[in-house]
Amino acid sequence: MIRRKIAAVMTPFRIIIAAYIVSIFIFSILIWLPVSQNEGIRLTYMEALFTSVSAVSVTGLTVFDVSQTLSLTGVIILALAMQVGGIGIMTLGTFIWLLLRRKINLSQRLLIMVDQNQYNFSGMVKLMRGILLLALSIETIGALILGTHYLQYFDSVWEAYYQGAFGALSAFTNSGFDVTGQSFIPFVDDYFVQIVVITLIFAGAIGFPVLMEIKEYVQSIKRKKSYRFSLFTKVTVTTYFLLFGIGAFGIWLFEHDLFYAELTWHEQLFYSLFNSATARSAGLATMDISVYALPTLLFLSFLMIIGASPSSVGGGIRTTTFAVMFLTIKSFALGKSDVKVFGREIHPEDKQRTFVVLSFFMFVLFVAILMISFFEGNNPYVDLIDIIFVTSSAFGTCGLTIVPTSSFSTSSQITLMVLMFIGRVGIVVFLFSVKRKETKSYYKYPTERIIIG
Amino acid sequence: MIRRKIAAVMTPFRIIIAAYIVSIFIFSILIWLPVSQNEGIRLTYMEALFTSVSAVSVTGLTVFDVSQTLSLTGVIILALAMQVGGIGIMTLGTFIWLLLRRKINLSQRLLIMVDQNQYNFSGMVKLMRGILLLALSIETIGALILGTHYLQYFDSVWEAYYQGAFGALSAFTNSGFDVTGQSFIPFVDDYFVQIVVITLIFAGAIGFPVLMEIKEYVQSIKRKKSYRFSLFTKVTVTTYFLLFGIGAFGIWLFEHDLFYAELTWHEQLFYSLFNSATARSAGLATMDISVYALPTLLFLSFLMIIGASPSSVGGGIRTTTFAVMFLTIKSFALGKSDVKVFGREIHPEDKQRTFVVLSFFMFVLFVAILMISFFEGNNPYVDLIDIIFVTSSAFGTCGLTIVPTSSFSTSSQITLMVLMFIGRVGIVVFLFSVKRKETKSYYKYPTERIIIG
Ligand SMILES: [K+]
Ligand SMILES: [K+]
Repeated sequence: MIRRKIAAVMTPFRIIIAAYIVSIFIFSILIWLPVSQNEGIRLTYMEALFTSVSAVSVTGLTVFDVSQTLSLTGVIILALAMQVGGIGIMTLGTFIWLLLRRKINLSQRLLIMVDQNQYNFSGMVKLMRGILLLALSIETIGALILGTHYLQYFDSVWEAYYQGAFGALSAFTNSGFDVTGQSFIPFVDDYFVQIVVITLIFAGAIGFPVLMEIKEYVQSIKRKKSYRFSLFTKVTVTTYFLLFGIGAFGIWLFEHDLFYAELTWHEQLFYSLFNSATARSAGLATMDISVYALPTLLFLSFLMIIGASPSSVGGGIRTTTFAVMFLTIKSFALGKSDVKVFGREIHPEDKQRTFVVLSFFMFVLFVAILMISFFEGNNPYVDLIDIIFVTSSAFGTCGLTIVPTSSFSTSSQITLMVLMFIGRVGIVVFLFSVKRKETKSYYKYPTERIIIG
Repeated sequence: MIRRKIAAVMTPFRIIIAAYIVSIFIFSILIWLPVSQNEGIRLTYMEALFTSVSAVSVTGLTVFDVSQTLSLTGVIILALAMQVGGIGIMTLGTFIWLLLRRKINLSQRLLIMVDQNQYNFSGMVKLMRGILLLALSIETIGALILGTHYLQYFDSVWEAYYQGAFGALSAFTNSGFDVTGQSFIPFVDDYFVQIVVITLIFAGAIGFPVLMEIKEYVQSIKRKKSYRFSLFTKVTVTTYFLLFGIGAFGIWLFEHDLFYAELTWHEQLFYSLFNSATARSAGLATMDISVYALPTLLFLSFLMIIGASPSSVGGGIRTTTFAVMFLTIKSFALGKSDVKVFGREIHPEDKQRTFVVLSFFMFVLFVAILMISFFEGNNPYVDLIDIIFVTSSAFGTCGLTIVPTSSFSTSSQITLMVLMFIGRVGIVVFLFSVKRKETKSYYKYPTERIIIG
């Protein structure tokens, strides 16, 4: 009886939200333990909680310097939180079930489908196992490449591979934390490191379904079979890389007369490429981006808001949302009622989701900017652009900053935590958690036209 | 042959845009004429053009002090431009046809329907004549009330009624221009003037269809018949006044510890009420609003973006767009696919329009803010909030300012002109002007689901 009541209240969407909340609290307590901190340092629970939310949501905003504050135990806990948040609580959960050789029943399948925001049902369990193996493989390869390359920079082999492993994990999960004390700024002249990092960021942000399809595509070539990529993969890959190019060009355009004026062409190129890649969710840095001018910072905020692919470690409104928005405006202007792309039609429900995600995201973002500007009314260290930037960074789970997050008041930090949480859970799952269960309208009202715009 | 080609290219939407462009150029030249300006003053064509765009789009942004610069002839031309822009080029055109006792054919009916963004076909001509009579009556009554009340303030009867007439016109057309030299600041302690002005603003901004329905409702009471208000009227009136209340409360909330701290309760009340009303499209002022704090200015920008009713003299995304956005998010969160309000269902096409208007508006607004922040890179007198505020003010055709518009560079002023123009024409008409004529898709693609958000 009670079990049935719980089953009715705990929809898959609510279970996901509960799982995120539970992991955030567990990791906050682990980070708060003295053993996680260096000697002589004592974090408040608020600082530990903020770090846990930031890690589980793979955002990377910090209220302290990780390399100075956390002990090795603390860093490992942080890395675990990033892994759990990045690759997905539900994916990990499934893997544990698989390890225990228990059969996955329908309700759990549904859960994974919801968390990864996928629609195709078949092969879901296989897909989840595939995702985890793929993620761990990519992270290991990244760690080995970076670690080996780092041998020239660090005194001990241990330190080189430690830095390499954390860097690879941070880049692939797009979490943006660092244990160098200054992100990738030490490697500003090392383009090899930057190319490896950008590749890892892409791998994490392009979305797991895309990685799986690429794997299947490679297999189909070996077997000399034809392979059709899904509409999702086509739309998200095109949008992701188109915006990566536009992003790099835009940054260069706004800065070529200013910060870039004295730099060589390859410095300009790599700053633009790295920042365009990192703004879309990773939040890693090769420079102090607060030197950028106002338009560049606004443009970076825009890139942070768009974000990465759905079903990836990245956040934001997501590439498909942005793409469907553009395609809808285009087809509307051309007087067409259906939205077409790559020889396929967008499903009406997906158009509605696009609308809901976009408007809800922008509305919440605005309310957050308004609230933080109210909380920071007397703070002389925080300007409007700082507020817009950190809010976009938190909600887009990016983690780039132009002023230290510790400059903000506790009220603002709580607001940022809420944004990171909703940003990671995703708008669709967040809104779907409102309803108790699938409800259908059994009665219809007459339709009446009104005037819009 | 050529006529048929022109007919094919000149869709109703393009004719409306052409009519606005033609009136803007005519009024810009009239304002530019020496006779329109006071002795010793010589406006550049850019200044005259900006004023014409601002007047025809009933925005009210100015690059000079109207009372000091324009002669009586100039003021009359400006008032005419406001009247033409406010009550609608097409409405006025229809009226001329009516005066000439020429029959209105179907194509012209279509035109009016499009300009007023109305769907019901019947009684359109009657409606247009009604609108014009109603508008002129309201303006005349307003002018008489304000003018008579002003007799205590001004030396001559002529000056009192001149100020009263211009004030009433400016308030009803929500255009926001003034010939006092400082808007309604001289009447900051005269709550009677402010109540009259707020009522006139409401009358202009609530939308002509609502006014007509109220008229019909009053008639039906006399005849003791029952009357049903349209869904449009219910949605727009509710949203308009709900936001008016929220606006006044929000302004008070952000300011009660700051600018309001030393003021009496009735000063606080009237500043909040007046600014909530004026931000939604009118752009008139009883105070220098630049003394407001950052959150209040952001909140006012939000109110300017929402704006007034469709088919009114006001701009913005419009009340119905905002309402349908909220209702769609709500029904999505509750797991319902249809959007219901007041016992009626919102038409799917109206939902799509809401989405297009909202996303296009926000995207253009963002691009404009980005461009102006780039143009003003070296301008020490302009901050980010000034840019956000003036951009929202121009696109929402509101006209409130916190820094003089003349502080902005020519490039920025051109950007503002484009915003005012699109803002007045309206997103739907603007986008519909892209297509040559009604096109239908004769072939259908298969639908494929993708992942959103
Ligand atoms: K991140
Ligand atoms: K106005």
